[in-house]
Amino acid sequence: MPARRKMAGPVNSEFDHLRVVLVDARNPLNIGAAARAMSNFGVRRLRVVNPYEVAFREARSAMGAAKLLANAEEYKTVAEAVADCTLVVGTTAVGHRELQHPLRRLQDGVRLIRKRLLAGKVALLFGSEKFGLSNQDLSHCHWLMRIPTRTEHSSMNLGQAVAICMYELARRGTVARSKEKNTQARAQEVERITTLLFETLRTSGYVKPRTAAATQEKVRRLIRRLQLEKRDAELLQGMLRQISWKLGTEDQG
Amino acid sequence: MPARRKMAGPVNSEFDHLRVVLVDARNPLNIGAAARAMSNFGVRRLRVVNPYEVAFREARSAMGAAKLLANAEEYKTVAEAVADCTLVVGTTAVGHRELQHPLRRLQDGVRLIRKRLLAGKVALLFGSEKFGLSNQDLSHCHWLMRIPTRTEHSSMNLGQAVAICMYELARRGTVARSKEKNTQARAQEVERITTLLFETLRTSGYVKPRTAAATQEKVRRLIRRLQLEKRDAELLQGMLRQISWKLGTEDQG
Repeated sequence: MPARRKMAGPVNSEFDHLRVVLVDARNPLNIGAAARAMSNFGVRRLRVVNPYEVAFREARSAMGAAKLLANAEEYKTVAEAVADCTLVVGTTAVGHRELQHPLRRLQDGVRLIRKRLLAGKVALLFGSEKFGLSNQDLSHCHWLMRIPTRTEHSSMNLGQAVAICMYELARRGTVARSKEKNTQARAQEVERITTLLFETLRTSGYVKPRTAAATQEKVRRLIRRLQLEKRDAELLQGMLRQISWKLGTEDQG
Repeated sequence: MPARRKMAGPVNSEFDHLRVVLVDARNPLNIGAAARAMSNFGVRRLRVVNPYEVAFREARSAMGAAKLLANAEEYKTVAEAVADCTLVVGTTAVGHRELQHPLRRLQDGVRLIRKRLLAGKVALLFGSEKFGLSNQDLSHCHWLMRIPTRTEHSSMNLGQAVAICMYELARRGTVARSKEKNTQARAQEVERITTLLFETLRTSGYVKPRTAAATQEKVRRLIRRLQLEKRDAELLQGMLRQISWKLGTEDQG
């Protein structure tokens, strides 16, 4: 079985840092097709968030990608699925939706991703077949990549969207190792700051109960836009903890 | 329904010359997936050769590509399906098979195809899920494009292979109109020459009965490599007709 053989080729050490994350995938065939495309282009690490059918391992169309599927990791939330990544990128075929994120062309986005793979883990998110990524999912992303489908028929098949992204990633051969260092904060650190800030805002009366969810997303997006380095994340956490503690003290005092 | 709207965008007049040809496709889902990817990237003309299930129009995954499928043209043979095209390109994910054709990287091949689309029709052939294009199919091609999958797992899902090719075709936006004119011979003219030459060779005793099929393929490939212009095709036909007539006369005489 081809997938059991050791993977070769120039790009694989880089791609070991890539996590393809399927969020709310509804069709096991699509999960299988995504796995197969990953295997075709030398990407091995699949994560699934809240899949509709746990039976996705049976996915029929994943010819030769059985091992990849068996090793897929399941998560309950996007936050957990991207926790160890330093860059989280969402995919979309939609150009006109009111997007609150920087939107990059696929080929430009891939160039950035490949640079970042040299330094740390990168999560590439794909939404459900029917709805794509939700605003909640998107709030975990640093930026988005758009697959350039035409406006009149932009909605892509999930397996085909994954295939195109994998192709574009593998297309260029190896990337020259840049000077980029492993200094970016991980998503779990960034999410901790988000939570800290949100709780601080809530405690401080900034968050209205009716719009709390929207505010949390807004905060999450804001923090991602900062593209925090590790040391800054630590610094911010320290600050927020202090503020939060103080707010709690004031409440009790 | 999105597919019923008029297609817009810069690339469509070019893509009106493109014929995606699925040869011996065995799975209606894959035909549907191919149609959907075509529609996503603004390619409308599908041709199917000898499909296993005539029920391919029902193909479920072709969300939004219903009209494209309804307009798909069916053919019995590759020769008929490519008859009006001036360039016939085969696709393969296999690099190591003993190929008798020039093999181009997908991105290089696509560049050539887009130039040729300005001048005339181009057929892009995809083989069956299981076996790809046969040697017989390949003998109709001028050259091949390889999708750069990794050696250990090169076999691609048909729908995904089509999606990647459509993406690569649409990726660059419009091509500057080159000076290339509509002077290339059509495949039906080229095939006529093939037949004339083969019959001439057979009559002349060149063709051994046991290897006749292989010889015919060899002839077909030879003629394609010539990349005949229209006027040369006419010239050649005239020559071969004359030779053939003469051979017949000699036989009878």
